[in-house]
Amino acid sequence: MKLIRFGEKGKEKPGIWWNGARRDCSGWFDDWNAAFLRDGGLEKLAEKKTVFEGLPLVPESERWGSPVARPALMACIGLNYADHAREAGLELPKEPILFLKPVNTIGGPFDPVRIPEPCRKTDWELELAFVVGRDVFALKDEREAAAAIAGYCMANDLSERSFQMDRGGQWVKGKSLPGFCPLGPWLQTADECPNVSHLSMQLSVNGTIRQDGSTADMVFNPAYILWYLSGFMQLEAGDIVLTGTPAGVGLGREGDAFLRPGDTLDASIDGLGCQLIRFE
Amino acid sequence: MKLIRFGEKGKEKPGIWWNGARRDCSGWFDDWNAAFLRDGGLEKLAEKKTVFEGLPLVPESERWGSPVARPALMACIGLNYADHAREAGLELPKEPILFLKPVNTIGGPFDPVRIPEPCRKTDWELELAFVVGRDVFALKDEREAAAAIAGYCMANDLSERSFQMDRGGQWVKGKSLPGFCPLGPWLQTADECPNVSHLSMQLSVNGTIRQDGSTADMVFNPAYILWYLSGFMQLEAGDIVLTGTPAGVGLGREGDAFLRPGDTLDASIDGLGCQLIRFE
Repeated sequence: MKLIRFGEKGKEKPGIWWNGARRDCSGWFDDWNAAFLRDGGLEKLAEKKTVFEGLPLVPESERWGSPVARPALMACIGLNYADHAREAGLELPKEPILFLKPVNTIGGPFDPVRIPEPCRKTDWELELAFVVGRDVFALKDEREAAAAIAGYCMANDLSERSFQMDRGGQWVKGKSLPGFCPLGPWLQTADECPNVSHLSMQLSVNGTIRQDGSTADMVFNPAYILWYLSGFMQLEAGDIVLTGTPAGVGLGREGDAFLRPGDTLDASIDGLGCQLIRFE
Repeated sequence: MKLIRFGEKGKEKPGIWWNGARRDCSGWFDDWNAAFLRDGGLEKLAEKKTVFEGLPLVPESERWGSPVARPALMACIGLNYADHAREAGLELPKEPILFLKPVNTIGGPFDPVRIPEPCRKTDWELELAFVVGRDVFALKDEREAAAAIAGYCMANDLSERSFQMDRGGQWVKGKSLPGFCPLGPWLQTADECPNVSHLSMQLSVNGTIRQDGSTADMVFNPAYILWYLSGFMQLEAGDIVLTGTPAGVGLGREGDAFLRPGDTLDASIDGLGCQLIRFE
């Protein structure tokens, strides 16, 4: 199943992408959130598949929201592709590098993103994200972790490099501006994502391809990442984990390859749809 | 005013600490949360001062919860006391060092804290915390920031140093275990905290004083910190910011000065009450 949300930011309603159209599930469920996941909501939704076709259509004019509700936590893995670590001039990590991104950075897949005045090095990072399906802590192994992943979606870990690298301390300073995490368009449930370790991913800026990678080149796979993180923290149903970006970010290029107001970015991951972002 | 919350974890109700007793405000307000703050709740509560005495008493047996609801974000400032930077063997930062702590680490001021099996270097960090009173982004100056602080409370940024320092990457790995942020007992509203830059703070482990500092030794004060952070992210009403710890953590001591199951910790900050934590 492909879960979507639609409507005004902060007031999104739950829906599905079904046979090439958005359909409204708000008559059945409040939201795609922690309570829904904890309550076995995905199974309950799957039982209704035979009547999806009868659900009301979402009007075309309705905004696409992020595909899941605001989580308690958004965790990100750094330098998880060897070619990206190389372009960033950083050593490939022996263990996953972890940082957190504020949950109020999350936006819809087609929302415009404002680059505030002091930014000079705004960069893109196309990433595969996953959503945690239940509360987990100290998972036994990768297999148990795999079973705790609810689904997958696209994310863009937009990063202001001047904040991240020139202002001292931890990376979070450059990862936190409002709207700096376009998410979606849909959450593909894990049962329909068997080839998650072989998804091609592409990102273009103003029509020029900048990132052209595959999840096959990840150092640490999603199940390993979730198992690993669960040793350091409790992850909750609905939490979102970004799994790192392949090579081709602006940071690795000579000269000025960063984003400016007026630029457009489009990105896609196999089977997970596409994002189209205009910068303001 | 001193805001408290009481009751079972995750189901706390709002109250106040008034004339040496906890009183139940759940008949007036749902919770001390973002909606309460955005709705001018603190002013509405202050208007009721004359009838505080008539509020129902909270039974002594009721658990003390964290004094405010789970926020969207908990931000922490590192190395904000010169003597602590020295003991950690790290240079004093030119700009505030920022990291995030998962919001599900928050516990009450007297909750026991479990040290999971693999931990060997569990450390304490007594800190002054503040709660943001409204949504803010790119604040103009320190003065505007000061007016956006709702109040102050005690926090303990418990840290597993082996995760933080020996496992690669950013600090967050060591800051994130369940219960690793005892908060409270109460939130003192900013209007009743005029001397926030001169509060003495003490922490003892098994009765031996380990931290004995004062907020007067902070490098960056709370208003400066909030102004600074608002340039990198939108902070929301109810968000919590920890302002760093003075010298005296276990990390700075020779030999094994870390916490073990069975240890007890007590801590206090002038006017902000005390915490008493048993480790399991």
